[in-house]
Amino acid sequence: MSKQYVFYFGGGKADGRAQMKEVLGGKGANLAEMTNLGIPVPPGFTISTEACDQYYKNNKSHSSDVKSQVAATLERLEKEMGKTLGDSEDPLLVSVRSGAAISMPGMMDTVLNLGLNDKAVEGIARNTGNARFAWDSYRRFIQMFGDVVMDVPHHDFEEALNTVKRAKGVENDTDLDAEDLKKVVDAYMQVYRKAVGSEFPQDPRTQLWGAIDAVFGSWNNERAIKYRVINKVGDLLGTAVNVQSMVYGNWSDKSGTGVCFSRDPSTGENYFYGEYLMNAQGEDVVAGIRTPEPLSALEKANPAVYKELSSLKELLEKHYTDMQDMEFTIQDGRLFLLQTRNGKRTGKAAVKIAVDLVHEKMITRETAVTRVTGDQMDQLLHPMITPAAKKALKALAVGLNASPGAAVGKVVFNADHAEEWAARGEKVILVRRETSPEDIGGMHVAEGILTSTGGMTSHAAVVARGMGTPCVAGCKAILIDEKKKIFSVGGTDYQEGAIISLDGSDGSVYAGAVDLEQPELGGELSELLAWADEIRRGAKRSGMADGFFVRTNADLPEDARLAVEFGAEGIGLCRTEHMFFDEAKLVPFRRMIVADSKEERLEALKPILKLQIDDFKGIFEAMDGRPVTVRLLDPPLHEFVPHSEKDIRDLAKELNKDAEKLIKRVESLKELNPMLGHRGCRLGITYPEVYDMQVEAIMRAAAAVAKAGVKVHPEIMIPLVGTTAELEILRANAQKVIDKVLAELNVKVEYLIGTMIEIPRAALTANLIVPHADFFSFGTNDLTQMAFGYSRDDVGSFVPEYVEKKILKTDPFQSLDIVGVGQLVEMGVSKGRSVKKELKTGICGEHGGDPDSIHFCYKAGLNYVSCSPYRVPIARLAAAQAVVMAKN
Amino acid sequence: MSKQYVFYFGGGKADGRAQMKEVLGGKGANLAEMTNLGIPVPPGFTISTEACDQYYKNNKSHSSDVKSQVAATLERLEKEMGKTLGDSEDPLLVSVRSGAAISMPGMMDTVLNLGLNDKAVEGIARNTGNARFAWDSYRRFIQMFGDVVMDVPHHDFEEALNTVKRAKGVENDTDLDAEDLKKVVDAYMQVYRKAVGSEFPQDPRTQLWGAIDAVFGSWNNERAIKYRVINKVGDLLGTAVNVQSMVYGNWSDKSGTGVCFSRDPSTGENYFYGEYLMNAQGEDVVAGIRTPEPLSALEKANPAVYKELSSLKELLEKHYTDMQDMEFTIQDGRLFLLQTRNGKRTGKAAVKIAVDLVHEKMITRETAVTRVTGDQMDQLLHPMITPAAKKALKALAVGLNASPGAAVGKVVFNADHAEEWAARGEKVILVRRETSPEDIGGMHVAEGILTSTGGMTSHAAVVARGMGTPCVAGCKAILIDEKKKIFSVGGTDYQEGAIISLDGSDGSVYAGAVDLEQPELGGELSELLAWADEIRRGAKRSGMADGFFVRTNADLPEDARLAVEFGAEGIGLCRTEHMFFDEAKLVPFRRMIVADSKEERLEALKPILKLQIDDFKGIFEAMDGRPVTVRLLDPPLHEFVPHSEKDIRDLAKELNKDAEKLIKRVESLKELNPMLGHRGCRLGITYPEVYDMQVEAIMRAAAAVAKAGVKVHPEIMIPLVGTTAELEILRANAQKVIDKVLAELNVKVEYLIGTMIEIPRAALTANLIVPHADFFSFGTNDLTQMAFGYSRDDVGSFVPEYVEKKILKTDPFQSLDIVGVGQLVEMGVSKGRSVKKELKTGICGEHGGDPDSIHFCYKAGLNYVSCSPYRVPIARLAAAQAVVMAKN
Repeated sequence: MSKQYVFYFGGGKADGRAQMKEVLGGKGANLAEMTNLGIPVPPGFTISTEACDQYYKNNKSHSSDVKSQVAATLERLEKEMGKTLGDSEDPLLVSVRSGAAISMPGMMDTVLNLGLNDKAVEGIARNTGNARFAWDSYRRFIQMFGDVVMDVPHHDFEEALNTVKRAKGVENDTDLDAEDLKKVVDAYMQVYRKAVGSEFPQDPRTQLWGAIDAVFGSWNNERAIKYRVINKVGDLLGTAVNVQSMVYGNWSDKSGTGVCFSRDPSTGENYFYGEYLMNAQGEDVVAGIRTPEPLSALEKANPAVYKELSSLKELLEKHYTDMQDMEFTIQDGRLFLLQTRNGKRTGKAAVKIAVDLVHEKMITRETAVTRVTGDQMDQLLHPMITPAAKKALKALAVGLNASPGAAVGKVVFNADHAEEWAARGEKVILVRRETSPEDIGGMHVAEGILTSTGGMTSHAAVVARGMGTPCVAGCKAILIDEKKKIFSVGGTDYQEGAIISLDGSDGSVYAGAVDLEQPELGGELSELLAWADEIRRGAKRSGMADGFFVRTNADLPEDARLAVEFGAEGIGLCRTEHMFFDEAKLVPFRRMIVADSKEERLEALKPILKLQIDDFKGIFEAMDGRPVTVRLLDPPLHEFVPHSEKDIRDLAKELNKDAEKLIKRVESLKELNPMLGHRGCRLGITYPEVYDMQVEAIMRAAAAVAKAGVKVHPEIMIPLVGTTAELEILRANAQKVIDKVLAELNVKVEYLIGTMIEIPRAALTANLIVPHADFFSFGTNDLTQMAFGYSRDDVGSFVPEYVEKKILKTDPFQSLDIVGVGQLVEMGVSKGRSVKKELKTGICGEHGGDPDSIHFCYKAGLNYVSCSPYRVPIARLAAAQAVVMAKN
Repeated sequence: MSKQYVFYFGGGKADGRAQMKEVLGGKGANLAEMTNLGIPVPPGFTISTEACDQYYKNNKSHSSDVKSQVAATLERLEKEMGKTLGDSEDPLLVSVRSGAAISMPGMMDTVLNLGLNDKAVEGIARNTGNARFAWDSYRRFIQMFGDVVMDVPHHDFEEALNTVKRAKGVENDTDLDAEDLKKVVDAYMQVYRKAVGSEFPQDPRTQLWGAIDAVFGSWNNERAIKYRVINKVGDLLGTAVNVQSMVYGNWSDKSGTGVCFSRDPSTGENYFYGEYLMNAQGEDVVAGIRTPEPLSALEKANPAVYKELSSLKELLEKHYTDMQDMEFTIQDGRLFLLQTRNGKRTGKAAVKIAVDLVHEKMITRETAVTRVTGDQMDQLLHPMITPAAKKALKALAVGLNASPGAAVGKVVFNADHAEEWAARGEKVILVRRETSPEDIGGMHVAEGILTSTGGMTSHAAVVARGMGTPCVAGCKAILIDEKKKIFSVGGTDYQEGAIISLDGSDGSVYAGAVDLEQPELGGELSELLAWADEIRRGAKRSGMADGFFVRTNADLPEDARLAVEFGAEGIGLCRTEHMFFDEAKLVPFRRMIVADSKEERLEALKPILKLQIDDFKGIFEAMDGRPVTVRLLDPPLHEFVPHSEKDIRDLAKELNKDAEKLIKRVESLKELNPMLGHRGCRLGITYPEVYDMQVEAIMRAAAAVAKAGVKVHPEIMIPLVGTTAELEILRANAQKVIDKVLAELNVKVEYLIGTMIEIPRAALTANLIVPHADFFSFGTNDLTQMAFGYSRDDVGSFVPEYVEKKILKTDPFQSLDIVGVGQLVEMGVSKGRSVKKELKTGICGEHGGDPDSIHFCYKAGLNYVSCSPYRVPIARLAAAQAVVMAKN
């Protein structure tokens, strides 16, 4: 028996079910599930993702199995509906939609009203007695088929439609009657003929296969690929195709179509939230061309339908135990559901819904923590306008609060410019009449998005929420001239490059830059994070101490304090080099670098010692007994000296040194590949006095703080160790200094001396290195650089292309490369623990705040992760998710 | 029972034996062995290397075990000799010498005549009736003890001696009589008192322990450490100390001392070779102060002693089955052997002796191949003066042919300058009156060494032979003024920086630079290498194809031909980038690099294609059916473009391009860490047309050669692969081109497509990469760079210090780091073979010519190594050694 590629749903029963997303796509699986639940869903069938995969493997052609299964299932559908595709009196019309396992809003293409032709349109007009509906459906079909299947420019159809509207002197599509729409159809046919070079296909089966091919084809169009890259969607088989009998929101004035959410996707409030458009098809709502009405209007206009919809919403939310995003159509007063899915939501909503569902006893706490993604959490940590600024501000205009958070940036009017400007470091606000899938790249890099049309479920709004980018949508007050690169509001013009601010949380738009502040953690978020903390602190792994902890990377007391507020349980990486860049230390440090003798170096280091003691005291106080890992000097010395001849001469004067000699010295510090040069512990070996000074500063600070009654746990970390001897020597040096300081000050301080594992050789020889280390901290930035042979500073020339071409699944500097670099981490842990069973291990660097990487770290047996203060809440959540997922 | 630290030898029996070198040092073990063989060796005892190790561990003090064992054994020695240490009439005198497990000529310190004091000297004078001998011995003892044990400047003693000689108006030490020597002793005592601040110790036991401490202490003096670094001597425990009853070469005119070799250490001829000095102690010979006489003079002077010596030589050579280097002393007509060891020899001698010993049935072929080191082989491959040049040349002066090979360089007069000049890339000839252990560093970097005094066993000669550095010694015609930095010969002055040439094979010195040529392989060397080939080609490793092969790295037909002459069995690395640097290709290649479109790039590549076909044809023809691995373009494009603004503007004119745009383009190619940037297969991904062109050129060349009836085996190698997808894509691209070319030309060519494993991640994921690779070639240069995080171009600032401080055992770019990088190689092999059982693997890069690395490669299961043409013979030998040693 041949494999099943086509899955029927209808008549209260379906071949598929919700669990079959991989094969049926999300939409198809849920259509099947809803059918099985007895919910009114127009019957139809789903062509599986495996058929899509096969289609590409067969060089874009369908197997005979797929062909024959489609034919047979179509026949079954015709029988069920009592209508025949292509019938000239009462034809079956179908929609053809894509639906991959992961929802990709606006990414894939849809064709509605398929099956219409010159004869069938007349039949429908006669049969329904609604000529306007028949011709409106036909012109929509021609437009969509032309656009999606045959690549006829969308714009040409718009032009043709506008010509007819202008001729009649009306503004809205709904003002056109059947005769007008006939004219539109004629005009569309000309557009089609001109663009395609042949007549519009009259055979419905030709139409159907054309549409199926177009859906499959759209799986690999540029914007779909880009979406998968941005959203890190890995290797799916392809998209499914849903062929479904049509119902008509544009049937009559008692018809309509809408989108609703079982809770507010923006705030998470348990409030039945939605929008609908009377006498319209679904595409009108999503495209944002007409501004829809709220669901409350439906409640008034048709309480019975509203009530039915409301009860279906309850049923579906309970069934899926999550907030649902549903599409519905009312055809002449009869309700149909066309789709349900777990609704996309803002971070705020995600947190509130997860917490509420626990309180409503629908889900457990463990499930709740898995319901919020890192990106959603990130939104909650986005800047907001300060209350003070907010009070004083007068908005230029107010639109819809489409995606929360505030943003400041320079106005750009198209996505390409947004990408260009952002690439050179500018912060931009993308201002568009409305956005479309082609704009994805520009939307991704923009600080904020502002549109003049469209509603809360328009493309801009949905995508911006998904990205966590602040968005004000449908801001009608602003008038955009994209050609002139200008928008005007209240008589003032704003050109490209003008600075504006947005508040996506209330829809306000402001001229100029406003003050932003970081949001505080509180309410449901605190509750959820407390559950997360409980879960990860109690995590049990065999042969290991309990718990999986979150530290922060912080170099300054203020960062440390902020991180503690965000829930950091220690500092995993305190970089001391940043401390040298403050003016008071930079001059003596430069004196140290260019010194001619050890004595001169020691002399130069004296004033730095004093200042570094204060640095460390501040940090130890802020951390109040939490462990603090301090990394000794890491970057090459060349980074600290001036580079222009003039600056070097100035420095020579300042240091009272011979300028020519100094120029030579600075020159001698230059390296061809500084990343692989004289830095890290290599400096500690050649200039032991620098590390000695740093260790002394750390211990004097710790001793002072301890004497003041504050607990302190310094952990001295030696960077860039590649050989056992480096650590052995530097540990001994440090020990000598520590012993001296503690003896002199007569105080006890608990401390550790450990190393970063960031050189591949260190991971490979971790068993040899570990006898000299109290802890390992994986420096996955450098480990990634060296394992891949990629310089972070230089990969711009090929890594984006690599990600796009799927040579790399993701940028390995953003998300840890588990397959390769991950092996070095695992090796480091297991070789280290093969000698020291209870060796403390952690990760510092960018990956410590990346949820996927955190999951890996948990599996690899690390005791903690460390990340920037703002990522700490995300890391707390991701750490808990790792614990929950490891159990399942 | 306590551990034995002190080992007695004497009375025909010894506690130790030859196999105990680790514990007794080479000298001690051989003294024991000789004693056991019944050879006349002055009795004595050896304090073990373990005592030295303990001495350092005990913070430079001896354990009571060592103390008491020394006392007891000394007593045994006194009993054996019938003399007592410190006796005022007929005291026991001893020598105290170092002796580590590995011979370190001139590196460790020696004290002779220990036991003498103001009273004993008189007693000996009386007792022997030889006052001159007594006082000469005493003054020597004071000088050596002062110098070695108490750090009294050598020079001060020389001055005192010269004062006495001047006063008497004589030139030679031997012209001083007993009274004169008494004066010398008085003067020495003053020197000692002044320098040390106390009287010369009169208690022989104080003297003894002082000397023992000095020997142990010298183990870690700077020059000993430097010697171990240069000679890659790893972690030995320490040195042993040999305390041996004195015999006197300065006893009388019927006395003498000498050094002899059982075969000529310079040529390997089976000829009893040696030198001796009448009425002298051994130090006089080694120090090169007096020029010794050949052994033939001894044959005439004392045929009986000569005969005895000659028969001992036979005995020892047969016993050790190797050429022996012996020290002997004749005391008043009676022969004693003070040392035997396997003699150091030139490369030429090593080969000849190994081959001769096989023919003499003393050793097997397998043993013979292990008897020649890579460094020795290297000497045979050193440049020689061309015969034509040689004919035309007139030597400035002729000295002793102390170490073979010819050298050209600039004159420097001290070792520090030699190091400085060499560090900035100058080739230098070190010119010294005589060298001393302090000069080791300078000798190591010099192209050649020229001394005006000293013989064939002087410090300069011994060390230069060991290093394989050409050396002319004892060239009396040249007069050196070290202060003025000038030497004069025949009335002409040569200043520092003047260019001279040396021929260490015949002792000639020439003004100016002479033409050098590479030597040919022949005679014994060919025979030895044939044995080596037989051994390695027949090598059997379980689960693998037979053999261990040697390929070469060659980019040009002439290199390929030379390598075949040297015995290369294929090309392991043909770098195509060098080909682009020839003018005809550089211009179109630059046009390609700066092209604005793919079309323009394709156009630019056309002329290169034609030229590359010719390049490859030449190489394929030269290799005549041997496999040729061609690496596709590897370096970053920035290397191919001009960098100065002027040159870029010129290029712009030449290419008819906008200069400003070109400047920007060149700028955009610059990278912060080019080693980790856009190069290797990353270029192949972004500019597929370049690799396509190269593959086309390779296959068109192969097809043309095949059609001409020459066998050809191209192996296309894709560099810098770090991810599976890179290789998958590039292999598919290459395959497409190959299929097209072979179809078009209608010819069959066997080819492989493989990759370099040079990115750590590639080794880590070799099992994923291997399905797309027909072979792996380990690029250990890059693998080392990335595994260590060392840029080859930048390590000068710390790697020398690392090697000196033993942080690194050797420079990992010279000898493969087996502990770390080696793991990646083993991982690559085993992961690759876990999927493809018979995967062909090899190594290219510098390590392929390093014997230690070759041994590792064999153990790791590689099928071949590849190295530069001149290293091929060394690799053939080392490969065979690896096979032999793996069996044992």
